[in-house]
Amino acid sequence: MAETGTGTTPPARRGRPGYDQETVLRRAIELFNRQGYDATSMGDLAAELGFSKSAIYHHVPGKAYLLEQALNEALDGLSEAIAAAETEPDADAYSRLRHAVAGSVRVLVDRLPAVTLLLRLQGNSELEVEAMNRRRELDARLTALVREAVADGALRDDLPPDLVSRLLFGMVNSLVTWVRPGGRYDADELASAITEIAFDGLAVR
Amino acid sequence: MAETGTGTTPPARRGRPGYDQETVLRRAIELFNRQGYDATSMGDLAAELGFSKSAIYHHVPGKAYLLEQALNEALDGLSEAIAAAETEPDADAYSRLRHAVAGSVRVLVDRLPAVTLLLRLQGNSELEVEAMNRRRELDARLTALVREAVADGALRDDLPPDLVSRLLFGMVNSLVTWVRPGGRYDADELASAITEIAFDGLAVR
Repeated sequence: MAETGTGTTPPARRGRPGYDQETVLRRAIELFNRQGYDATSMGDLAAELGFSKSAIYHHVPGKAYLLEQALNEALDGLSEAIAAAETEPDADAYSRLRHAVAGSVRVLVDRLPAVTLLLRLQGNSELEVEAMNRRRELDARLTALVREAVADGALRDDLPPDLVSRLLFGMVNSLVTWVRPGGRYDADELASAITEIAFDGLAVR
Repeated sequence: MAETGTGTTPPARRGRPGYDQETVLRRAIELFNRQGYDATSMGDLAAELGFSKSAIYHHVPGKAYLLEQALNEALDGLSEAIAAAETEPDADAYSRLRHAVAGSVRVLVDRLPAVTLLLRLQGNSELEVEAMNRRRELDARLTALVREAVADGALRDDLPPDLVSRLLFGMVNSLVTWVRPGGRYDADELASAITEIAFDGLAVR
């Protein structure tokens, strides 16, 4: 005879069972990506989760809070990946850059919904502008890695480093337009394809 | 004494002077990109142009008509660029692919607002689904060019051609996120940077 609601049920949490804050955040990010953050109301999110419009506030203080959590998830991940590459012991500038590219790909795939949200920001609020500024700082660190690899003589010097950085991470970021969880290629395959194309080139040498 | 409305005034057109259909289309594309096609009403477009809500219909039959014009502008341009590369006389598969990439970059820069609109489509209407299908056909033609260049022995064969095509044109399409008219790099500089990175690689050989 089947028993329901007993046995391995996790400890009670605030709000409706089965909907902890983490679940609410995941569903909110999905919804923001599907219909746009500005076009999504807390009422829409409540409906998506099967809550009443007032019950949703038992779970989260508001829409901006969810956006902030999502953007930090993406930005913290990217920042840590770049920091790990920057501080790699015994690596030359060229390896550090390759690792920064590969690490960024892995974060993008692992945190796909949050990074998708980040990359689509239009800067419509102070929160969005702050996130875009944090993103710009990361871009500057990546451009610095490109510049160092050029200075080391490991990277071609006939293209402006900021343009190289934009195109390189443009290729990385384009993954959000087609990669899906459980898709055909995993994060490591994508990281390796991108670094090989960008650094070694497609043409047979 | 200044005369108004005489001399070099162009022949009268339908609708308010200074606002021919072409101008209405340009402003509509800008507005669609700024606030999203679905979120834009004909009333918004009328306000943008300084028309009354009814006057706008003297210029254009409706919102979907403007979207269709914009998407055709982007898709026809890309299709012509790829056709020109495919049918190039005396070119091997590798040159045809390089020319397809460079030609796509030029169309993207020359028709930036229309291509931006195309790349952001979500498939929310039959019209959008049709445009996305046309885009998918172009992607298939580009993948075929990659496959031919691999078969010719000119392109590395250790990466799946459809993945190569996605990443290559992911880099091309990422231009819409930062290139602005009259910006620092012109279409030829961008086309040459992208083909050199993707085919020859960033690493010093």
